[in-house]
Amino acid sequence: MSPVATQNLDASHGTELSKDPKVSGKASTPGTEKLVINTIRCLGADLCQQYKGGHPGTVMGAAAIATALWRYSMRYNPANPEWVNRDRFVLSAGHACLLQYILLHLSGYSTWSLDQIKKYHAPTMDGIAAGHPEIEYPGIELTTGLLGQGIANAVGLAIANKNMAATYNKDGFPIIENKVWCFTGDGCLQEGIGQEAISMAGHWGLDNLILVYDNNSVTVDGTIDICFTDDTSAKLRSMGWHVLEVDDGSNDLAAIVDAFDQAKSFTGKPVFINIKTVIGIGSANQGSGKVHGAALGEDDVANVKSALGFDPKEKFAVPQAVYDYFKESQARGEKDEKEWNELLKKYTESYPSEAKEFQRRLAGELIESWESNLPPKSSLPQDPKATRQSSGIMLRSVIPQDNSFLVGSADLCESTFVNWDKMVEFQNPKSGYGDYSGRQIRYGIREHAMVGVANGLAAWHKGAIVPIMSSYFIFWLYAAPSLRMAALMKLRFIAIATHDSIGVGEDGPTHQPVAFPLFLRALPNFNYIRPADAEEVAGAWILALKDSDHPSLLSLTRQPVPLLSGTDRNQVQNGAYIVHGDASETPEITLVATGSEVARAVDTAKLLSDYKVRVVSMPHMGRFDKQSAEYRRSIIPSGKSLVVAIEPYCSFGWAKYAHAGAHMTGFGHSAPYSTLFEHFGFGPKNLAAKISAWAETRKGSEGWNLPGVGEFEELLLNQVQGH
Amino acid sequence: MSPVATQNLDASHGTELSKDPKVSGKASTPGTEKLVINTIRCLGADLCQQYKGGHPGTVMGAAAIATALWRYSMRYNPANPEWVNRDRFVLSAGHACLLQYILLHLSGYSTWSLDQIKKYHAPTMDGIAAGHPEIEYPGIELTTGLLGQGIANAVGLAIANKNMAATYNKDGFPIIENKVWCFTGDGCLQEGIGQEAISMAGHWGLDNLILVYDNNSVTVDGTIDICFTDDTSAKLRSMGWHVLEVDDGSNDLAAIVDAFDQAKSFTGKPVFINIKTVIGIGSANQGSGKVHGAALGEDDVANVKSALGFDPKEKFAVPQAVYDYFKESQARGEKDEKEWNELLKKYTESYPSEAKEFQRRLAGELIESWESNLPPKSSLPQDPKATRQSSGIMLRSVIPQDNSFLVGSADLCESTFVNWDKMVEFQNPKSGYGDYSGRQIRYGIREHAMVGVANGLAAWHKGAIVPIMSSYFIFWLYAAPSLRMAALMKLRFIAIATHDSIGVGEDGPTHQPVAFPLFLRALPNFNYIRPADAEEVAGAWILALKDSDHPSLLSLTRQPVPLLSGTDRNQVQNGAYIVHGDASETPEITLVATGSEVARAVDTAKLLSDYKVRVVSMPHMGRFDKQSAEYRRSIIPSGKSLVVAIEPYCSFGWAKYAHAGAHMTGFGHSAPYSTLFEHFGFGPKNLAAKISAWAETRKGSEGWNLPGVGEFEELLLNQVQGH
Repeated sequence: MSPVATQNLDASHGTELSKDPKVSGKASTPGTEKLVINTIRCLGADLCQQYKGGHPGTVMGAAAIATALWRYSMRYNPANPEWVNRDRFVLSAGHACLLQYILLHLSGYSTWSLDQIKKYHAPTMDGIAAGHPEIEYPGIELTTGLLGQGIANAVGLAIANKNMAATYNKDGFPIIENKVWCFTGDGCLQEGIGQEAISMAGHWGLDNLILVYDNNSVTVDGTIDICFTDDTSAKLRSMGWHVLEVDDGSNDLAAIVDAFDQAKSFTGKPVFINIKTVIGIGSANQGSGKVHGAALGEDDVANVKSALGFDPKEKFAVPQAVYDYFKESQARGEKDEKEWNELLKKYTESYPSEAKEFQRRLAGELIESWESNLPPKSSLPQDPKATRQSSGIMLRSVIPQDNSFLVGSADLCESTFVNWDKMVEFQNPKSGYGDYSGRQIRYGIREHAMVGVANGLAAWHKGAIVPIMSSYFIFWLYAAPSLRMAALMKLRFIAIATHDSIGVGEDGPTHQPVAFPLFLRALPNFNYIRPADAEEVAGAWILALKDSDHPSLLSLTRQPVPLLSGTDRNQVQNGAYIVHGDASETPEITLVATGSEVARAVDTAKLLSDYKVRVVSMPHMGRFDKQSAEYRRSIIPSGKSLVVAIEPYCSFGWAKYAHAGAHMTGFGHSAPYSTLFEHFGFGPKNLAAKISAWAETRKGSEGWNLPGVGEFEELLLNQVQGH
Repeated sequence: MSPVATQNLDASHGTELSKDPKVSGKASTPGTEKLVINTIRCLGADLCQQYKGGHPGTVMGAAAIATALWRYSMRYNPANPEWVNRDRFVLSAGHACLLQYILLHLSGYSTWSLDQIKKYHAPTMDGIAAGHPEIEYPGIELTTGLLGQGIANAVGLAIANKNMAATYNKDGFPIIENKVWCFTGDGCLQEGIGQEAISMAGHWGLDNLILVYDNNSVTVDGTIDICFTDDTSAKLRSMGWHVLEVDDGSNDLAAIVDAFDQAKSFTGKPVFINIKTVIGIGSANQGSGKVHGAALGEDDVANVKSALGFDPKEKFAVPQAVYDYFKESQARGEKDEKEWNELLKKYTESYPSEAKEFQRRLAGELIESWESNLPPKSSLPQDPKATRQSSGIMLRSVIPQDNSFLVGSADLCESTFVNWDKMVEFQNPKSGYGDYSGRQIRYGIREHAMVGVANGLAAWHKGAIVPIMSSYFIFWLYAAPSLRMAALMKLRFIAIATHDSIGVGEDGPTHQPVAFPLFLRALPNFNYIRPADAEEVAGAWILALKDSDHPSLLSLTRQPVPLLSGTDRNQVQNGAYIVHGDASETPEITLVATGSEVARAVDTAKLLSDYKVRVVSMPHMGRFDKQSAEYRRSIIPSGKSLVVAIEPYCSFGWAKYAHAGAHMTGFGHSAPYSTLFEHFGFGPKNLAAKISAWAETRKGSEGWNLPGVGEFEELLLNQVQGH
């Protein structure tokens, strides 16, 4: 029942290739192409066999596609992988990384020596040939491999190019003009994020994006038709894509190059190229799931080599002719960049201010005045405001004047306060809603792809673009895999997450996060910031924008909170600090709170008039973790004072700093926020009563009988209603 | 540029309705239908205006659709909302819950009194008219509202019906024969999970599923074409759906009923009904985003009522004729169930063993022998095995003989060990791969929808189906929003998450979870279980299957771990227990570990020969949290012993029980697992050295100088390589 036709290789010829003179004519010598493609296949087989693992099937099946890309179709200069006007290549099917590594080697990226590639799966920590491609290394645009995300990343890169081009290109000066190539397998097309991203790209008519589908009809579990029977070409057409098809993508190099040529010249829509291939072609198990994620075995590798005209005893063979074959593309790349440098020079003479801004952005700088443009505390609204509104004030202070910012929302632009006066939407000019110079991106109701796209924007030329995205807090959980990838890649963005905690109110427990924020706290390289008021919101923006190596999420309220006298934007970077109480004296009770509960803690402190009470605001636990032990102890003196955490999330993680806590023990409820805070015990009167009663139990003969590790107390266990 | 044509209502008539005699003929009296529909609209407007919030637009725009469903098209008995052969209705666009509540009231669900519905958004904790529909209440199949998930839930319900029908129906005895209706807006169709689920349903040819698209072309931010320009009907066709279209779904009741009739009789494919409506029809702002998520305002509500022939001064008006109108559907439902009960009685006589099993499952019971079918510790493989393999042993001991289990995988069936001998795949019989009685579900590479579907399976008739799903650990992050919903809904399933921790090895940091497991620990109502060896895997299965009110995720290794002498399946339910060391004496050092690190902790303990060392296995921190303080202190004597946690995740959450920890401080790396464990410091020699050196610093004049709260130490801060 397998839909994959068995294909036999002619032992004396290897694969049939490029009888089309157009392609052959470009090649060094007739017959070289098949040697190149077969070299890639044998290398793939050898590299997986070496440590008996990895993914040989796609390397072998898609060798011709990769050859077409690196030899004929892509614009890049291996001598300068960071050349800003290069084409971008994203391997969404990241498990096929060997294919990319091999081509980076053959096409002249010096870092990618054969010795480096041979470290694929090696028992060593110093290799760069990781099991999935990693952004740290030359020629790799983004870390991919979690299926589907690469497509969204590629859409982000395509948006970046469109936006930069629309912003800086002038008549006769196409300083940004390139293509984004994304290589995908079946998995990425099945994943939700892939489908969201495809729908976006079609909507925007991103004709600089080419999605290359290695359609081998095989997944880990077998032939694709056991789980997937979409008419993929029709589906892509329904989402606004132009579709090309290639019948024999494992062999017909000429047809592939022709399709790529067509794709490059097509305008108005992104292009999807559906290329049928045979996974693991040449293996005894070609066309089956067996060659997807396992080495072929010694015998099969030997057979493959014999069939392709290689010496079965020789490993990692790369004939000189194969290296020579890529000399032309290397030379072309050098020439392309040289010409571009000249173009940029003339552009700089003709358009000095645009060029200056362009260069500033390539250097990763924001406009100098951004921090001073934020309103000082004295100019902030003195009446209670939701922190989402305060965030809007900061956004409107820094966004409009700096093209570095590409803002957007998952259909919640106004209620998350990411809009501004005279903003232009990033839209297909034909839509009538905006154009590609626009910086307000309508991501639609597609949170996961939104962040995948943002990762592409942030990675386009690191620092040149700062993506800002918004949604309600709980919907960021949909995007969690891409938030995590941003942290892994150390990309900067700001995620505006409004409607945090049970403060969501009437929308009920489905929309009230009680545990998800704790994941963001636990995540390495990630700034989870929950500011207490407008002043701390300013501090959160400052922290997020200055921290160019990490993504940040701002956890903001739907409901109003007062501007507190003790808050200080400059302290947010320390993670936690004292907002109430005399810093010079040791408190008897220390209340540690975050976000909207800092005001509640201050009110509670005032009710606990029998004690010396300190209130600490902890907008960023991760930053506090990184402070010196001395600083931490000076803020939270847990060896002398009773420490109570107050936060309407679950208590997980708080025992690190607190002896007891007022937290949620289950999901929330649907009711107005004020009803919920009272019901769940976060009213200052109830908090003061609970804390006071608990403190009584900790009184010893000489001061507090301080709880030790293992004795954390939940003070609000009596939450009866709720989920 | 709005694509929504303005529609005027004739003040004297309200909406034009059902001139088609087919529909009018069914109705009590001519003109009643428009009265019903206008009543729904006015109720929607009133209920949102009452507390000045909510989503009136869809209630008004889709009133005719809902009328058609509850009056003509759906099969249900309001007197028994749990009747197992009812049609299921899933409101994927959960924010439109008022529409459902109103129809539940009008159609005769006694719990849904008008007084209850009036508690929508009320400042009270005792209402059932939550901001999104909640599974706890009659007539609500699942809690929805996080967009897209309802579609996946509905696919799960449709699978459940198909599977039950294929398993139990006999010639002349269609004891399970009903439809699943899913109401969706634009949002659910944009979300990745919605698209994944749609692709699945088309693949399986689920012709008992009808997706009703309220195509009002408006979202929160404006008209849909600012972000979404898919040709949705063509897209659904490309994914194997039959598509029907209705032009005027706000008014043309006859056309809607006709489309529903066609959908009910169509066979071979699921049916998508694309119904154009005008959101907020009747409001001055109809057809715009303003009526989506905000009350209309007093004046507009009054105008709407006047236009629809209602008294603007009267609130919550429901004419008796409207109640009378639904008497026929009530009577039909009662008759349907009565006939079905008779059918079931005869079925029981003719097929007693099938009927017995059917009734056992409806009672939520598994086959009695399941626990005793699990191999005892003495029969487990004595050589090291990956816990994923051990899980396979348990699965194969209980799954094959009990139809209650619907197992499946996101394309990783074999490597997650969820296959078994002679398993039949759940497939469209036409595919040749299986049939609807099959219990191995090929979910494809669609993790999020997999769990959304599982929630539908688990909710079909709670307890009758136990879904088991599998994927690699990190891919469960894609499904996190649906894992969370399972916890919120208190549904039982088992998620098999293999390849946990840096033990993933070569696939590298993209695939190595270091923080995500901590989210699952923090999540209320959720069993995150990380068993140490095959014996604890048995305990994990027992815990998960016995806990019928909670979902469980089993965190399993890719790499082999030894069977430990100290492990005990019966102790897993306690969360943590002693696996090494003399329980009767107080240890000097207590090592607390989970999963594959328990064996490492035991080896480390043996190296720390200068101290009395205890090793505690903590497969389930959440369960341990719930034990008595006495039990907890008896296992982890943190007031007397130094306590060190060992787990290759981030340390977040461990300070609750440990003074220090050996943890990851960043993401992992691509290398073989043994290389990684050594490099990151988890080799027993290094652990013993680090613990020993640290213990030296804690020596006081009288025993340990035990660290207090706020002094947690990371022992493995020197991780240099990695991300």
